[in-house]
Amino acid sequence: MKKVILAPDSFKGTMSSIKVCDIMEEKIKKFFPLAEVIKIPVADGGEGTVDSFLKAVGGTKVRVKVSGPYFETIDSFYGILPDGKTAVIEMAAAAGLPLVENRKNPLATTTYGVGELIRHAVLNGCRNIIIGLGGSCTNDGGAGLAAALGVKFYDDVGKEFVPVGGTLSRIERIDISEMQNLSGLTVTAMCDVNNPLCGENGAAKVFGPQKGADEETAELLDRNLRHFADVIRSQFGKDIADIPGAGAAGGMGAGVAVFLNAGLKQGIDVVLDTVEFDRLLDRADLVFTGEGKIDGQSLRGKVVYGVAARAKKHGVPVVAVAGDIGDDIEEIYKLGVSAIVSINRMAIPFEMARHRSEKDLALTMETIMRLISLNAAT
Amino acid sequence: MKKVILAPDSFKGTMSSIKVCDIMEEKIKKFFPLAEVIKIPVADGGEGTVDSFLKAVGGTKVRVKVSGPYFETIDSFYGILPDGKTAVIEMAAAAGLPLVENRKNPLATTTYGVGELIRHAVLNGCRNIIIGLGGSCTNDGGAGLAAALGVKFYDDVGKEFVPVGGTLSRIERIDISEMQNLSGLTVTAMCDVNNPLCGENGAAKVFGPQKGADEETAELLDRNLRHFADVIRSQFGKDIADIPGAGAAGGMGAGVAVFLNAGLKQGIDVVLDTVEFDRLLDRADLVFTGEGKIDGQSLRGKVVYGVAARAKKHGVPVVAVAGDIGDDIEEIYKLGVSAIVSINRMAIPFEMARHRSEKDLALTMETIMRLISLNAAT
Repeated sequence: MKKVILAPDSFKGTMSSIKVCDIMEEKIKKFFPLAEVIKIPVADGGEGTVDSFLKAVGGTKVRVKVSGPYFETIDSFYGILPDGKTAVIEMAAAAGLPLVENRKNPLATTTYGVGELIRHAVLNGCRNIIIGLGGSCTNDGGAGLAAALGVKFYDDVGKEFVPVGGTLSRIERIDISEMQNLSGLTVTAMCDVNNPLCGENGAAKVFGPQKGADEETAELLDRNLRHFADVIRSQFGKDIADIPGAGAAGGMGAGVAVFLNAGLKQGIDVVLDTVEFDRLLDRADLVFTGEGKIDGQSLRGKVVYGVAARAKKHGVPVVAVAGDIGDDIEEIYKLGVSAIVSINRMAIPFEMARHRSEKDLALTMETIMRLISLNAAT
Repeated sequence: MKKVILAPDSFKGTMSSIKVCDIMEEKIKKFFPLAEVIKIPVADGGEGTVDSFLKAVGGTKVRVKVSGPYFETIDSFYGILPDGKTAVIEMAAAAGLPLVENRKNPLATTTYGVGELIRHAVLNGCRNIIIGLGGSCTNDGGAGLAAALGVKFYDDVGKEFVPVGGTLSRIERIDISEMQNLSGLTVTAMCDVNNPLCGENGAAKVFGPQKGADEETAELLDRNLRHFADVIRSQFGKDIADIPGAGAAGGMGAGVAVFLNAGLKQGIDVVLDTVEFDRLLDRADLVFTGEGKIDGQSLRGKVVYGVAARAKKHGVPVVAVAGDIGDDIEEIYKLGVSAIVSINRMAIPFEMARHRSEKDLALTMETIMRLISLNAAT
């Protein structure tokens, strides 16, 4: 084995994709010390997205002070990839749930800092912006982000304000005339949910509770997002309420679609495009992928699917490693996955198994390498 | 792959070794339809031992009526292997725990029927007798078995009787003068426990409770076995109390050692010798073994150890499949096991996992065959 590509997702709740890559690499090197191992820790747009990209392709981490979820100044960051023109921003770095531990309130929090990160990257010369949507504490529809880029929001007495989740309903007029010049800018949002902006499957109803909204608050937030969409439709003629993914990150999916003309894509596709996965596959002997749970039903759009579909085209075999494997896996084999291996080594519940996941992954990779190395298959 | 040998243990509580072989074979044939697959379902001496041998090497199942645990007539059986000279007898077929469901009483039950099976096999021309010790409902030290072969037991008033667990203490004198002629007979007992006949680790104290003995009864049974050993030592000069394995099958280990001059061996060694495993290994490409739980500590004497030690000598790689895999597995790799694969595919407790073990084994074998078949390892 001369060239191996590692493109695993994180194992939710147990291991980051970077950790998974490191464990995989160690075991591969044990059996094939001279093999070239290319690590592409896959990000889904949430926390850790910037680090994953920098790990995969290199680049610089830029540290910036921006407005936090409550408009307070916080230390944040984004990444610039080696081309010097592509910035990777995770919205969670300025508006993430961990930033408001014990202070969750989607009525009051803002994505303003995310806009500041974008502005900083643009002023830094970046022309491609990748924004990871995920892990947000906000429900402002991306209004804060837009405000940071010069969009002005006015209430019914003509007073300018920066709307948050609880005050989107007060928007009477939106003025984009003084918005930062973004011509020539390509914005791609990584977005692994398909939720629309409003309604029963919308941002507020589905994700509000984990951000601290009770039922009544979620209803209010949902009405406010609907009002935001109404104003946008009447002023700009764009209907954003039902775009799949508009409801990602507290409706920031809608905001970046409207104000930044962003494309909403699956995280795995953005990652694989950015690292030029198809080029990497050239002369690769094997690809390892994996995720916390694999099954045939929920596969479409997930990491294993994305990786396998491309590897299959290039005739490179794929081995997938998973925490749990569902029963309907024939579909996965058809996708081009050669083998799927669970890291579970004991019949114990997840609450116990999760504490030994790194060890289990290492032992499982050892098993896989041993089986691959068997000379019995002739 | 042209020749594959399957030598798995049963997965205790979920699958017989025969079932494990069948599932393994099916998946191997799926990937290598022309491969010769030799199935050796391993028996441990307990229930199913005869069927396992017959499945492994062929032969005849002989059906006989003998005395059951309460001296009642029952339908029993033993096997004659293709050489026509080797009989395989499982003591559980005449004195097994399932025969006394709801009527457990180690004070009253007998191994008499096991002696009848042996006599039948000898009269049938068998010169090698393999007796599986395991799964007994008795605690008679094999006295019943001896009585069925013509050994006479007398009490203190010179009255002949057939001792059972509760009456071994009444033995005053043993007369072997009218015992069936067993010259030229080789008897091997399959025995996977090392317990001595008496004491804290003896037959009564350790295995009595599962046969229905309360603490007081177990004490009584233990004293009675001690008396039995004392009589034997004073009459025949043989000290059987402390032989490892003498305590197997309610002390029948001691009985067959004394009266039949039986060697007490690990079940796996008896199986591998009987099937001429070393000869089978010639030109084999791969061996599959496995058991319910594998770890480095408890390995010695177990199936995987026995199989791997022999395969290693012949340079044939071994893949072990297990329910649970313990953490200290480096030892197992050193033994000559190339890879160990768990059938667990989900982080769920055994009470749930056990119901899907056959499916999990099949899916795991599929994974193994897929990994072995990968052409990436060049």
